[in-house]
Amino acid sequence: MPTLMNRQIRLKSRPTGLPTLDNFQFVEVPLPPLEAGQVLVSSRFISVDPYMRGRMSERKSYVPPYALNEPIAGGVVAEVVETKSPNFAVGDIVLCGYGWQTHAVVHEDQIRKINPSLAPISTALGVLGMPGLTAYFGLLDIGRPAQGETVVVSGAAGAVGMIVGQIAKIKGARVVGIAGSDAKVNYLTQELGFDAVINYKTSPDLNRAVAKACPAGVDVYFDNVGGSISDAVLAHLNDGARIPICGQIALYNLEQADVGPRVQSQLLIHRALMKGFIVGDYSARFGEGISQLAKWVQDGQLKFKETIVHGFDNTVNAFLGLFSGENLGKQLVQV
Amino acid sequence: MPTLMNRQIRLKSRPTGLPTLDNFQFVEVPLPPLEAGQVLVSSRFISVDPYMRGRMSERKSYVPPYALNEPIAGGVVAEVVETKSPNFAVGDIVLCGYGWQTHAVVHEDQIRKINPSLAPISTALGVLGMPGLTAYFGLLDIGRPAQGETVVVSGAAGAVGMIVGQIAKIKGARVVGIAGSDAKVNYLTQELGFDAVINYKTSPDLNRAVAKACPAGVDVYFDNVGGSISDAVLAHLNDGARIPICGQIALYNLEQADVGPRVQSQLLIHRALMKGFIVGDYSARFGEGISQLAKWVQDGQLKFKETIVHGFDNTVNAFLGLFSGENLGKQLVQV
Repeated sequence: MPTLMNRQIRLKSRPTGLPTLDNFQFVEVPLPPLEAGQVLVSSRFISVDPYMRGRMSERKSYVPPYALNEPIAGGVVAEVVETKSPNFAVGDIVLCGYGWQTHAVVHEDQIRKINPSLAPISTALGVLGMPGLTAYFGLLDIGRPAQGETVVVSGAAGAVGMIVGQIAKIKGARVVGIAGSDAKVNYLTQELGFDAVINYKTSPDLNRAVAKACPAGVDVYFDNVGGSISDAVLAHLNDGARIPICGQIALYNLEQADVGPRVQSQLLIHRALMKGFIVGDYSARFGEGISQLAKWVQDGQLKFKETIVHGFDNTVNAFLGLFSGENLGKQLVQV
Repeated sequence: MPTLMNRQIRLKSRPTGLPTLDNFQFVEVPLPPLEAGQVLVSSRFISVDPYMRGRMSERKSYVPPYALNEPIAGGVVAEVVETKSPNFAVGDIVLCGYGWQTHAVVHEDQIRKINPSLAPISTALGVLGMPGLTAYFGLLDIGRPAQGETVVVSGAAGAVGMIVGQIAKIKGARVVGIAGSDAKVNYLTQELGFDAVINYKTSPDLNRAVAKACPAGVDVYFDNVGGSISDAVLAHLNDGARIPICGQIALYNLEQADVGPRVQSQLLIHRALMKGFIVGDYSARFGEGISQLAKWVQDGQLKFKETIVHGFDNTVNAFLGLFSGENLGKQLVQV
């Protein structure tokens, strides 16, 4: 039997500003033979996520930087094609973290079995995976929306934002999204029941647009983007507002310092809370989160949307598309 | 008996930037006769506080603006000189809220008796009053310092900051203050046991000064001042840091927008919490706070310091001195 080859995408150089194809290198390497306790898997869906941009820089972030000349690590849904583990059979679908590779030899401790009867297997990277859990814990643990309150979510048509808005609706809040195209605005209002959505690219005065969309002020602002979009929302806080800081996609490719109105006065005047978090802070409660999310999906209360690019060769383009707002919902690569 | 006259300081015009004497008017008015349930009191100590500046502007803050041509409201320790209340006797010392006036006729429901045997009566406006409670709840409820953590407090030589640092020491934290004169630095380190104090006026590179004073990073930043001092501290947060926002004295007289590095990225990277609060948020727990503070004072674990200006005519100057950093500890006017 010829040696099975693995294709990888490695970080060739650290991007300055927006990454380009030149920052990445496609390589083909032989796979090592299986040892006891290991399985060989073949990638079915590869995740590309905004947070990966942070790891491509050298500076400290909440996760360590990627090493140069190593594959980009991240979530993958894969199928077991060979096994030396008693716990995994050929054909099993598993969640892995080896990232942008077509195959991998992984130890049984590093993977988790996915139940394909629960939902499409790709959802393990979306609504029933990291983005779903991020939305669930950030909104419910930090945002704590009450019935009738106004929840604003930026990056509303992204993998996390879309779930945030729907959970807020389930909790009885009035939900206002901020997104970057009319197609997204239409999807969020017509398909997902958002009460209002602002297209920040076509709103000449974002401050006024937020005021109009939130006549009763803002009780929860779930922030995925940062920058001047957040400035506009933060000018309309209600007393006791809560602001989970989930992402700052507007800044990830920024080359200069991020300068704007300091938020402290608003937080003081409104006795508001702002808190950064990452989903890993809640790892002890992932089971609770996934089972509640799965229940909402099965009940039809929580819809999920994926943008799927086909072919491993398109992984980098799918990743870059996150920063030009091409994805509606979770961006995946089908291998 | 001739009618007793009351002297008042009223807000004549709303200040732009730093207030001046011209914004205030001294008037003399006759006191109304006592009705049942009322007492006539004579001011002994009048409080001047940074937050009063906010109420002199028209814009919404966490307390309503002062009305023009009305006395400036605020805390007063007074003595009962005439009584038509069965609950108060002549000579009783009481805490009132009528502000910058030499006398007042007040209803028994609006005042609280002070026990002069507990501590000097002026402390009802300081360590055992609003500043003490502000320090107590902001630090312990939001900041939650743990043994061995580093707590930084700005405005460290002010009424609130001085108590914050001492409570943090009681809780076993390493305490770093930021203050504006060498006399303050010496007092905080030598008399109150702060581990390090930065003089922000003489530090050429505040960022480096914070790094040097906080080799293990910052776990709690109790912010009384805002602006560029806060920027320097916020660049050194540890993961899981907590930042109670208590005041922003650097901004109260600012005429332009408060612009600087946006803090959201730091909060995200370090999963940090920032929360604005006012002491009134904790009114249900004031009893707990005062009795703990009094116990620490009696034990000698918590020292208090007052800067006392003599004479009602100097009230406005005492208030203005807060913004040039003239006070060490609680600024009071003795009438």
